[in-house]
Amino acid sequence: MSAAQVVRRVAVFGGTHGNEMSGVYLVKRWLQNQEAISRPSFQTVPCIANPRAVERCRRYIDVDLKMLKMLIDDLFYSMEAPPSTAPYEVHRAVELNKKFGAKGESFDVIIDLHNTTSNMGNCLIIGSSTDSFTLQMAKYLVQWSGLVCPVFLTENPAPHLKMADTTSMSAHGIGLELGAQPQGVLLADVYLRHERLVHTCLDFIHKFNQGEIFPPATLEVYRILHVVDYPRNKDNELTAMIHPELQDKDWHPLKPGDPMFLSMDGKTIKYEGESTIYPAFVNEAAYYEKGIAFWATQKETLNVQELQVKA
Amino acid sequence: MSAAQVVRRVAVFGGTHGNEMSGVYLVKRWLQNQEAISRPSFQTVPCIANPRAVERCRRYIDVDLKMLKMLIDDLFYSMEAPPSTAPYEVHRAVELNKKFGAKGESFDVIIDLHNTTSNMGNCLIIGSSTDSFTLQMAKYLVQWSGLVCPVFLTENPAPHLKMADTTSMSAHGIGLELGAQPQGVLLADVYLRHERLVHTCLDFIHKFNQGEIFPPATLEVYRILHVVDYPRNKDNELTAMIHPELQDKDWHPLKPGDPMFLSMDGKTIKYEGESTIYPAFVNEAAYYEKGIAFWATQKETLNVQELQVKA
Ligand SMILES: [Zn+2]
Ligand SMILES: [Zn+2]
Repeated sequence: MSAAQVVRRVAVFGGTHGNEMSGVYLVKRWLQNQEAISRPSFQTVPCIANPRAVERCRRYIDVDLKMLKMLIDDLFYSMEAPPSTAPYEVHRAVELNKKFGAKGESFDVIIDLHNTTSNMGNCLIIGSSTDSFTLQMAKYLVQWSGLVCPVFLTENPAPHLKMADTTSMSAHGIGLELGAQPQGVLLADVYLRHERLVHTCLDFIHKFNQGEIFPPATLEVYRILHVVDYPRNKDNELTAMIHPELQDKDWHPLKPGDPMFLSMDGKTIKYEGESTIYPAFVNEAAYYEKGIAFWATQKETLNVQELQVKA
Repeated sequence: MSAAQVVRRVAVFGGTHGNEMSGVYLVKRWLQNQEAISRPSFQTVPCIANPRAVERCRRYIDVDLKMLKMLIDDLFYSMEAPPSTAPYEVHRAVELNKKFGAKGESFDVIIDLHNTTSNMGNCLIIGSSTDSFTLQMAKYLVQWSGLVCPVFLTENPAPHLKMADTTSMSAHGIGLELGAQPQGVLLADVYLRHERLVHTCLDFIHKFNQGEIFPPATLEVYRILHVVDYPRNKDNELTAMIHPELQDKDWHPLKPGDPMFLSMDGKTIKYEGESTIYPAFVNEAAYYEKGIAFWATQKETLNVQELQVKA
């Protein structure tokens, strides 16, 4: 049995990446009409996380906001302001931390809306296998959103492999990573799924605040193992692409011997690992520059503790 | 009966838009191995049209190269060099003109490789309903490539609506606009279709040079009528998105009363034109900034004259 603090403040971030359109347009709409995402027991604040990137419809201006968390913690967190020469996103991350973080208004939950060009469906991204509140929220989405929601767990034994994310400045956080949607394109279907998932999160939080007990449960997750890069030449250019049989197959098992890449002149390159993996973020546009063709994950079942609001 | 000059020089452009990846990677490969696209009766030259945009994986640096044709004609064509303050793409367009245009090596055919986020399949873009060479080449692709190839005709009675394009500096030109592929993503399937279409073009040109007679034919085309923009507010932001029933339905008839847009708060906006149109470039990422939700086209059947090489 685990008890968590009542939730007073929830932030919904869109445009952490400026060319991921369904979060951008939902948050813009909610900024005009905050009532649509309000619930009686807590305050919900919508926020365009990277407004300059949104304006220019780019992922970021200088550096990827999503990757800044550790930088902020290590370097800038205690500063009043970063040096004026710092990249735009560093300034913005410090602003966001001051507003939403522990030294600011101390938001309890951050919901961060993202899109991917990968065929990941309604992916929920969580950072911890032990935060009962977030795990119960994910379980609630899986059970009650009416959508198939694979859960991507970014917690890994190797600390340098921890994916940083914008939600980590609050007590609890979840990323809603919906695809497939091209950068700079708004698909109505994705927009409607994103909207439904946010409402389901808010419903969960309200029920939690009201004292509802969420029973012990199990939750199937895909835990990150390592990244797999494209084959490249000495100029760092791709010499092969995702194999047609792997394309769009996020969350499907990739077994030793399965086709993985297709070289530019038509040769199949097989997966030669020792055990079955479950690829995610297959062929994500933003990951070419990061050296990621896909994330290898393993399937696990987590035990989720019973949850109730702290009396 | 129509006779055209023998073809001596063919250029294959990739990266006219730097984030359209199948053309970029095909041309990079062919630059390493020009033999793959050579034919005995003519020279084929691959070219990355906008190298700086390719390097940064963006559509363009300062202005869209595809839209520069008229500017070049009117303003810069007779100049030795544009002013140094001119946008990068103006410099590049003048360079391309000097190399491939009538005052340079005078290329006979330009094949321009593009990708779109729209579900347009293997779209052939042609600029004229009277150039028998290009029409016969399109017909040959339709008949012999083994791929379904809708033909998009950019010729319109209103001259200001003529879509400019990079191929117009040569005697004949064709755009191969393949989708759906997100910007910055390389899909093996699209790459292989692009490769096959280029080879089919080259086969056609070689047969033509060899004296093969291409009989009179008809060709079904979609002729541009006008653009349809998204509903927008006073800040020019979208207030509606492509309706799920129109999404991915490029080339399908849109009849008066059919759903066209879905407003951000869920209301359907119907098409209220007087006659059936055939949308193309539905929800293309690059066209949001240009005020284009899709191009309205009409279906027509063109008569194509018999073609033979000039004796
Ligand atoms: Zn993102
Ligand atoms: Zn293009």
